[in-house]
Amino acid sequence: MQTAPQTASSLFSADARNFRPSAIRKFAKLINDPSIISFAGGVPSPLTFPAAALAGVTREVLDRSASVALQYGPTAGLPRLRQFCAEWTTRRGVEASGDRILITTGSQQGVDLIARTLLDPGDVVIVELPTYIGGASSFHARSAVLEGVRQHEDGIDIGDLERLLARLRRENRRVKFLYTIPNFQNPSGRVMSAEARSKILGIAKEHGFLIVEDDPYGELAFDGEPPAPIAAADDGTTVIYLSSFSKVLAPGLRCGWIFAGPELIERFELAKEAADLCGGMLDQSIVDEFCAGGSMPAQVESVRAFYRMRRDTLLGALESRLSRVASWTEARGGLFTFVTLSNETIDTAILVPRAIELGVAFVPGAPFFVDGSGRNTMRLTFAKEPDDRMREGVDRLARLFQEIGELN
Amino acid sequence: MQTAPQTASSLFSADARNFRPSAIRKFAKLINDPSIISFAGGVPSPLTFPAAALAGVTREVLDRSASVALQYGPTAGLPRLRQFCAEWTTRRGVEASGDRILITTGSQQGVDLIARTLLDPGDVVIVELPTYIGGASSFHARSAVLEGVRQHEDGIDIGDLERLLARLRRENRRVKFLYTIPNFQNPSGRVMSAEARSKILGIAKEHGFLIVEDDPYGELAFDGEPPAPIAAADDGTTVIYLSSFSKVLAPGLRCGWIFAGPELIERFELAKEAADLCGGMLDQSIVDEFCAGGSMPAQVESVRAFYRMRRDTLLGALESRLSRVASWTEARGGLFTFVTLSNETIDTAILVPRAIELGVAFVPGAPFFVDGSGRNTMRLTFAKEPDDRMREGVDRLARLFQEIGELN
Repeated sequence: MQTAPQTASSLFSADARNFRPSAIRKFAKLINDPSIISFAGGVPSPLTFPAAALAGVTREVLDRSASVALQYGPTAGLPRLRQFCAEWTTRRGVEASGDRILITTGSQQGVDLIARTLLDPGDVVIVELPTYIGGASSFHARSAVLEGVRQHEDGIDIGDLERLLARLRRENRRVKFLYTIPNFQNPSGRVMSAEARSKILGIAKEHGFLIVEDDPYGELAFDGEPPAPIAAADDGTTVIYLSSFSKVLAPGLRCGWIFAGPELIERFELAKEAADLCGGMLDQSIVDEFCAGGSMPAQVESVRAFYRMRRDTLLGALESRLSRVASWTEARGGLFTFVTLSNETIDTAILVPRAIELGVAFVPGAPFFVDGSGRNTMRLTFAKEPDDRMREGVDRLARLFQEIGELN
Repeated sequence: MQTAPQTASSLFSADARNFRPSAIRKFAKLINDPSIISFAGGVPSPLTFPAAALAGVTREVLDRSASVALQYGPTAGLPRLRQFCAEWTTRRGVEASGDRILITTGSQQGVDLIARTLLDPGDVVIVELPTYIGGASSFHARSAVLEGVRQHEDGIDIGDLERLLARLRRENRRVKFLYTIPNFQNPSGRVMSAEARSKILGIAKEHGFLIVEDDPYGELAFDGEPPAPIAAADDGTTVIYLSSFSKVLAPGLRCGWIFAGPELIERFELAKEAADLCGGMLDQSIVDEFCAGGSMPAQVESVRAFYRMRRDTLLGALESRLSRVASWTEARGGLFTFVTLSNETIDTAILVPRAIELGVAFVPGAPFFVDGSGRNTMRLTFAKEPDDRMREGVDRLARLFQEIGELN
């Protein structure tokens, strides 16, 4: 007979023992004090949400089609919204069709459904150094092993990827996919070059693993469009492409999508059926109506303009105050710049409590690196604070570096 | 070197090979023809959705707190809504507190998070015969093995449960939990007696497995309240309690909750963080505002009255037309009655095409039985069709049974 367990944890699955709280998210919870200027968040500015337009659209949806918006819906998503996502993806250069689009409860669910469908315990996922922590959470929750590949300023270091693959081959370990955010990466802000994209696709095909191309920031381009997605050069067999309305419209509506080959999309849909039956139907109806009304292109322009100015302010302040102690990424789009301190012996995590005392918050970089490196880095977002507070926040960071003798 | 796979399926996880499409859901998709009278659905009637009230609440939410409703939110859910769910659960007799409530993307996600947190491949889940197919999907998606336990009219057959446990013990197989829907079960419509609830709790404690008590229909009581939930007699260590706003408010808002002990809730929250970061914030804000405004008790009363009349009509029609060929469950609440044909050799699945030709649809019962039994059963919902159409639908069923010589 089974004996009664002492604690619930004795019944946990092996995967559940690998669940990891996000270091970042826990940290972000603490910062609600308005006296603290925060570069620490990872969320879009509510000032970019078209609240009035969405309220209008919502009124229409509830007037005209409450029995759809309030009811269960198809697991794959509202057909017209799937079609819009296909067209929107195609506009980025990836020829997509609605039947190969799965609407997800935010892009996070997309990553998670992929993890559930592809990963067995011990499988290798190659991730960028640094990488998005939410992606890593989903892979850990499948007991996968994450191996990091270094980034240049223009994305994944191909030489390092080849060395990693050679090592994994010697160790006889199976790579299921490479996870990349090629555009304005979270957390690095970097863009992968067209050349690197092409090489990575070739390598994936040669080695028989997939590429999970997560592209929530691709629309947030401030200085011209990024190169075409990796999926644009694929024949539909190697790249799984994800995107989201969270950064360009509103994350509270939990609406993202996956585009992939038919066999994969069908299996992701089964995974979603088990995960939550269907996504929010009011959310989807609102996004659908907003998009069908032709409002997305202007919305994207307005969000780009908003963050472009913010980016200019933050990078200008960093240039004038911190150029002697640090370097940072260009942030030609997205929400983040990534700062590397020249002094490699500094651990930014140790600086956090004093920074908070000085009234400024940032996210230390190490949690984004699966190989334990990156201690002298930090992620700064320009999404949260208005210009004057960002300038003041950088002054406070400068004070911090003065205190530890890095600046005088 | 790995060689390039022939197809994406060669990269599927072991779990993904166990993903199963819902036989029911696929079937429900086919029935959109208004000439077909459908007892086949499993969804609430849109006539019960308080659309106008929800539209008003939504307007307020988007006016007053768009920056919360459209933003990312806490993984565990809106604090005030968690508090409401705790009070609502307490009202049912289960002393709950907000910090032990996790808001989920519908109850389906609750079941799925539990499965991810507790199930390893080959673990046994005990389910009722028949059981809810969506629950089974989540367990299959973890490669668990489902073992069925028979039901009496008043819920799980304790003798059969004990025999099953004895067999599993001999086979040295590990039971992680028993999954039950004690109130107005989907699909059977049955209510578990207070005595059976108490016995099952004792057996679970003795054998060291958990009980997952799924209670989406508990509020939909037509003829007096059902017995207190199993969780009411628990000390917080054995029972995981789930409920949902889907059946009493609107499923499109994807809002359910889990109540469990602190160690489990914490782990479910980590699972949710990987699954979708947070539930829909507009959805939660709307439900929260509706509940905080005190509207739930009247809404529940109105939904009960609606389905009570529908139930009376369907059962009356069955009584007058089919009592010679079948028996059915009482449906003292919920959305379903479950019909068993007296002639055990009839397979209701085989009758479906002819039923559709005659203009009536039902769900054959066999897919709800994990042991392959139940072929002479069918699930009928009284949620979809108005009274006159239900009467006509039962006439058409009678015609079907005449054609096969069961009625004259």
